[in-house]
Amino acid sequence: MKAIAYEGTGRLRTMSVDATPPGPGELQIAVAYCGLCGTDLHIAHGDMDARVRTPLVFGHESSGTVAAVGSEVEGWAPGDPLTVMPLLWDGTCAACLAGHQHICQNLTFVGIDAPGALQQLWNVPATIAVPLPAGLDLRTAALVEPVAVAVHDVRRSELQIGDRVVVLGGGPIGVLIACVARHAGADVLVAEIDESRRELIAALGIDVLDPAAADLGAEVERRTNGTGADVVFEVSGAAAAARSATSLAKVRGTIVVVAIHAAAREIDLQRVFWRELRLLGARVYQRSDFERAIQLLHQGVIPGAELISGVVALEETATAVKDLSAGRGMKILVDVAGGDRA
Amino acid sequence: MKAIAYEGTGRLRTMSVDATPPGPGELQIAVAYCGLCGTDLHIAHGDMDARVRTPLVFGHESSGTVAAVGSEVEGWAPGDPLTVMPLLWDGTCAACLAGHQHICQNLTFVGIDAPGALQQLWNVPATIAVPLPAGLDLRTAALVEPVAVAVHDVRRSELQIGDRVVVLGGGPIGVLIACVARHAGADVLVAEIDESRRELIAALGIDVLDPAAADLGAEVERRTNGTGADVVFEVSGAAAAARSATSLAKVRGTIVVVAIHAAAREIDLQRVFWRELRLLGARVYQRSDFERAIQLLHQGVIPGAELISGVVALEETATAVKDLSAGRGMKILVDVAGGDRA
Ligand SMILES: [Zn+2]
Ligand SMILES: [Zn+2]
Repeated sequence: MKAIAYEGTGRLRTMSVDATPPGPGELQIAVAYCGLCGTDLHIAHGDMDARVRTPLVFGHESSGTVAAVGSEVEGWAPGDPLTVMPLLWDGTCAACLAGHQHICQNLTFVGIDAPGALQQLWNVPATIAVPLPAGLDLRTAALVEPVAVAVHDVRRSELQIGDRVVVLGGGPIGVLIACVARHAGADVLVAEIDESRRELIAALGIDVLDPAAADLGAEVERRTNGTGADVVFEVSGAAAAARSATSLAKVRGTIVVVAIHAAAREIDLQRVFWRELRLLGARVYQRSDFERAIQLLHQGVIPGAELISGVVALEETATAVKDLSAGRGMKILVDVAGGDRA
Repeated sequence: MKAIAYEGTGRLRTMSVDATPPGPGELQIAVAYCGLCGTDLHIAHGDMDARVRTPLVFGHESSGTVAAVGSEVEGWAPGDPLTVMPLLWDGTCAACLAGHQHICQNLTFVGIDAPGALQQLWNVPATIAVPLPAGLDLRTAALVEPVAVAVHDVRRSELQIGDRVVVLGGGPIGVLIACVARHAGADVLVAEIDESRRELIAALGIDVLDPAAADLGAEVERRTNGTGADVVFEVSGAAAAARSATSLAKVRGTIVVVAIHAAAREIDLQRVFWRELRLLGARVYQRSDFERAIQLLHQGVIPGAELISGVVALEETATAVKDLSAGRGMKILVDVAGGDRA
């Protein structure tokens, strides 16, 4: 079978390897599609060389079907459609014991810390396999993981119906947060500097502006009668956005930190104090977020097809990484099975 | 009667002025004591010249008795002991309508934006007068306002019994937060650089260390078996403390921003994200916090007498300001009635 491996120092390679049968407690997955995200780009560019062990088969936004069922696994049969929630926790740390397994202090992220989905036959513990409903297209299903991030972020914000929401950054996660927040009854405004992304967001019927051209603060004031936003999602990772987030939130408003910020950011703590703001970190997802994400895609609440800007062959993964890094496309899927599809 | 006024550009003056009778809805208070806090020092130093209108009679940590009762006021009689919750809200802004009157978008802080307690006969709206129980010493009662700040901060943190708490900064508010948190069942550690303050804190039976000499992070790791603190109160206002707060908190831990930070601070948003931290602003107090503060002082939970490092005559206010600015003393009270006490 074929696989894509990151070999270190910014190099990707297509490999042919023998598949191993699933071990006890494992499922062997015939991977159909694997989406590429910002973390994958970081891996491919060598930004995470200190963390990953090479060669690493990466990829964690997967869909597929069961190819083989290992011993001690119940409830699965070959051909069952599924996705994978790529988190393995130790179950013993203080975070796990407090019920926050998804941010276990010793979390293994499958696709970063363990082999991921960019291989045609992928063995995973059956505990992290999540069944897909009949009728959910496997391309769309490759979006479950990022949608689960968005569901988690919105749930973490405790957003309520009628809330005025600002999403700073309209990349894949920002758009998905906007869709989920809208579904939760919020009035959503997205700030995004890239024109093609703004066009896609506007086409989804979501209000969007260019924070480099328009006065975002004035617009939020106008939309909220001077009150400020109930919830601000910081999804851009930009220093300027981190600063403006506090200025946009209302008294007792909530700011959710979704983006990865590579450096410490200047935050207006005086504003945090003065308005009694709440700043919440939000990372990955819980099983319930994953299951809700599947529902939202299945029901068409999330317009999966419109967010997929391209599907490439497994061998074209490096090109897709290059395109995404250059800001071309919203979400690109790798067709992992390709010509080898059963 | 005598009063202390801030005259602008860093000057204080003792004035003799005629008392005016209380207007409709007002109480005239024979002020007994008025505590001085960091905000008063800022006013006296001219740091708040852009906000205050001079001459300003400042002071907002008061105790006294009713001297006269204005028309349309019920439930009060001359001689009744009382303190004042120095907040006036508009009742109409979005914050007020949401029940957050204490952080009204158009808040008037009495003693900053309106005449305060450093006058022997002080007229205030009866709505902001808070009765004191018989038997609560009027010196101790002058601490109600800062204790209410601490009660508000601890309530805002949603601290639970058994929580491991770190208080960054052991000045008056930090010590009071430590006392209230201990009363709420927490295990408290205070970080304070000033030796005399550390001695006072240790004498209260509260664990304290010098963050300039000891490794605070290692100590918190040790005390929490590597988990991190449940709640960190940032009371110091220091840039270094703002940065270390995120490093000390456990997964899903809470950081309460109590201090005023004059400039934007570098915050490790990556840690906020990674550990799903919660950063909460906390400002002033609600009426229930004020009433609970009175109880805690009356019950002796807060060791009022031990926190009062000095009592000075009204005419000595400028000297007290100088001493506090130089870091001498924890809490200094002004004996407002002085020789004129009835
Ligand atoms: Zn764990
Ligand atoms: Zn108001």
